[in-house]
Amino acid sequence: DTNFDLKEHPHSRLNILTGDWILVSPHRTKRPWQGKVEATQADDRPQYDPACYLCPTNKRADGSENPDYKGSFVFTNDYSSLLLNTPDGGLNEDELLVANSQKGICRVISFSPRHDLTLPQMTTKEISKVVDVWQSEFEDLASYPWIKHIQIFENKGDIMGCSNPHPHGQIWAQNSLPVEVAKETQQQKLHFEQKGTSLLADYLALELKKQDRIVFENEHFVVLVPFWAVWPYETMIVSKRHVTSILYFTEQEKHALADAIRRLTIRYDNMFETSFPYSAGMHQSPVNSGDHPYWHWHMHFYPPLLRSATVKKFMVGYEMLANPQRDITAEFAAEKLRGLSEVHYKTRE
Amino acid sequence: DTNFDLKEHPHSRLNILTGDWILVSPHRTKRPWQGKVEATQADDRPQYDPACYLCPTNKRADGSENPDYKGSFVFTNDYSSLLLNTPDGGLNEDELLVANSQKGICRVISFSPRHDLTLPQMTTKEISKVVDVWQSEFEDLASYPWIKHIQIFENKGDIMGCSNPHPHGQIWAQNSLPVEVAKETQQQKLHFEQKGTSLLADYLALELKKQDRIVFENEHFVVLVPFWAVWPYETMIVSKRHVTSILYFTEQEKHALADAIRRLTIRYDNMFETSFPYSAGMHQSPVNSGDHPYWHWHMHFYPPLLRSATVKKFMVGYEMLANPQRDITAEFAAEKLRGLSEVHYKTRE
Ligand SMILES: O=P(O)(O)O[C@H]1O[C@H](CO)[C@@H](O)[C@H](O)[C@H]1O
Ligand SMILES: O=P(O)(O)O[C@H]1O[C@H](CO)[C@@H](O)[C@H](O)[C@H]1O
Repeated sequence: DTNFDLKEHPHSRLNILTGDWILVSPHRTKRPWQGKVEATQADDRPQYDPACYLCPTNKRADGSENPDYKGSFVFTNDYSSLLLNTPDGGLNEDELLVANSQKGICRVISFSPRHDLTLPQMTTKEISKVVDVWQSEFEDLASYPWIKHIQIFENKGDIMGCSNPHPHGQIWAQNSLPVEVAKETQQQKLHFEQKGTSLLADYLALELKKQDRIVFENEHFVVLVPFWAVWPYETMIVSKRHVTSILYFTEQEKHALADAIRRLTIRYDNMFETSFPYSAGMHQSPVNSGDHPYWHWHMHFYPPLLRSATVKKFMVGYEMLANPQRDITAEFAAEKLRGLSEVHYKTRE
Repeated sequence: DTNFDLKEHPHSRLNILTGDWILVSPHRTKRPWQGKVEATQADDRPQYDPACYLCPTNKRADGSENPDYKGSFVFTNDYSSLLLNTPDGGLNEDELLVANSQKGICRVISFSPRHDLTLPQMTTKEISKVVDVWQSEFEDLASYPWIKHIQIFENKGDIMGCSNPHPHGQIWAQNSLPVEVAKETQQQKLHFEQKGTSLLADYLALELKKQDRIVFENEHFVVLVPFWAVWPYETMIVSKRHVTSILYFTEQEKHALADAIRRLTIRYDNMFETSFPYSAGMHQSPVNSGDHPYWHWHMHFYPPLLRSATVKKFMVGYEMLANPQRDITAEFAAEKLRGLSEVHYKTRE
């Protein structure tokens, strides 16, 4: 039927990175909202908070004292969900009760000594230093031969379960491949075996030709709303060069990544003139487990807000039991993000 | 290593229904919570609310007027995410941009004319009537030959995106298999082909022998915390008889299902003496697509609360990018649920 139109009709889209589908209901944006309205988060923090476990010189839960650091500061999570000293072992009863021991390292990275900042309020140079730390942490964690995967991520905003507004991210490294990464590994491998090319490089080339879902690009990175985006304003940063992990980024690329993160998060903050919450993180090649030439570095941003600073998208009943669902299209979201200023609303005259 | 202990050491568990893994961090329950605290939902509603689109005799968005119904009331969702008249069609550009038209029907079921009730506050007889409606709706929707899957679910509480506290559920029926159902279909099929038995029947027999994760049972159903539970107090109702869908439940079974739902949701409300939020729904055989003898009816309850009526579990950065994660074990949750009263806290003297 030639009447079918992605802008108008309910449809499913394939996530080529995971092999999963999502349901898109473009006609549904008219739905009024009578449900939960989130409190807006207080946004007038001091530069230094004596009660914050991330601020320089303060005490942490384990009794140690933070140094008077000037850039970033990395330490082992005081409440790590993965531990170094977990004994090996497992369980398999009739293939019905199946479990495996998990060993790992969880670290916290304070992005800045300043309690009152967030990434979009930092300079490109300051964010570059965070990228440097991500790179050196990746290298350090990959030097443990039993570590197979390193997840670098940030939860921003209390709506995303972030328990401290001091700008910071986390790294969880472990001895096995998490579910989402295993799926992306399989899909990229399949494409590489069939076509001899990087799945994301091919996808990027097509998106750059179409320009429907591109938010912006710089010399080394493209920021776009993936065709299969689940969250209303979900985006992805993809490196133009086919590189398997952050380990291989040059100085120029690291600087360009900082530029991309800064410009994207400023646009996010400007969307509803609020500190825009999200969970973001990199997906990259597994480590210490052979060659993965098909892996293509990228970074996902999953922001929950839908209509305003206080109304989010709920991934609940149908989504949990059946399939992720969204109302606005990826193309609509990209257009909206493209139209936003790269000057942070708080610094405007 | 014989020191490995599920009660103490971080580990991953296999969800045999989906093939996915989850990360369990049992040692992490000591973590203090300094993050987001949810507002408690107002809980003193009138029996009738003139502004509610579900109450008898009120006007709805499409201009129609609800009947003065006495039991349940079913109507087509005024903001359906799936529509009947979607044209067929799709898109496939180089296997990179892939989409398919989706056709479907979304219905809303008011569980009771009373605006102030929830399932745990209704009698078993009243809940039985809701089960009757689920069964007849399933039958009706399955009579459309193009419908392949029928998702019956309930979002309860504004924290679960429920925009109206009037007790109600939803049904989304569509022309294809959603992701989660496709995974469960594959896993159950595999087991059936290899062993000739129902995966869930075998699992149930093992759980009943162990008694570690059983909450309670009645003549026809078992309520348990699955070994691979993701949400803190996630449970599953499984039918003792291997039945592919609600279509085949006898009068006795329907009554026993109402009993199981009532007793489970009362325990939930008693947990934190609050109207316990959750998303719940049935998983059952696809329809109009051949025989699925391996499918075993069950119902999932996914409640978000972790520590109290106001502190929930956040499935965010690591969980979205890598793998679902939980702190308390399934065994701990089952023990806690077993210890709770089946007399609703609001009706106690
Ligand atoms: O249909 P409702 O109750 O308006 O909406 C709720 O349930 C739907 C199905 O799980 C979700 O897609 C929505 O995000 C949620 O707010
Ligand atoms: O480690 P945090 O910031 O205390 O905790 C936050 O991020 C973790 C990793 O995504 C989640 O498991 C927690 O639910 C969330 O509250």
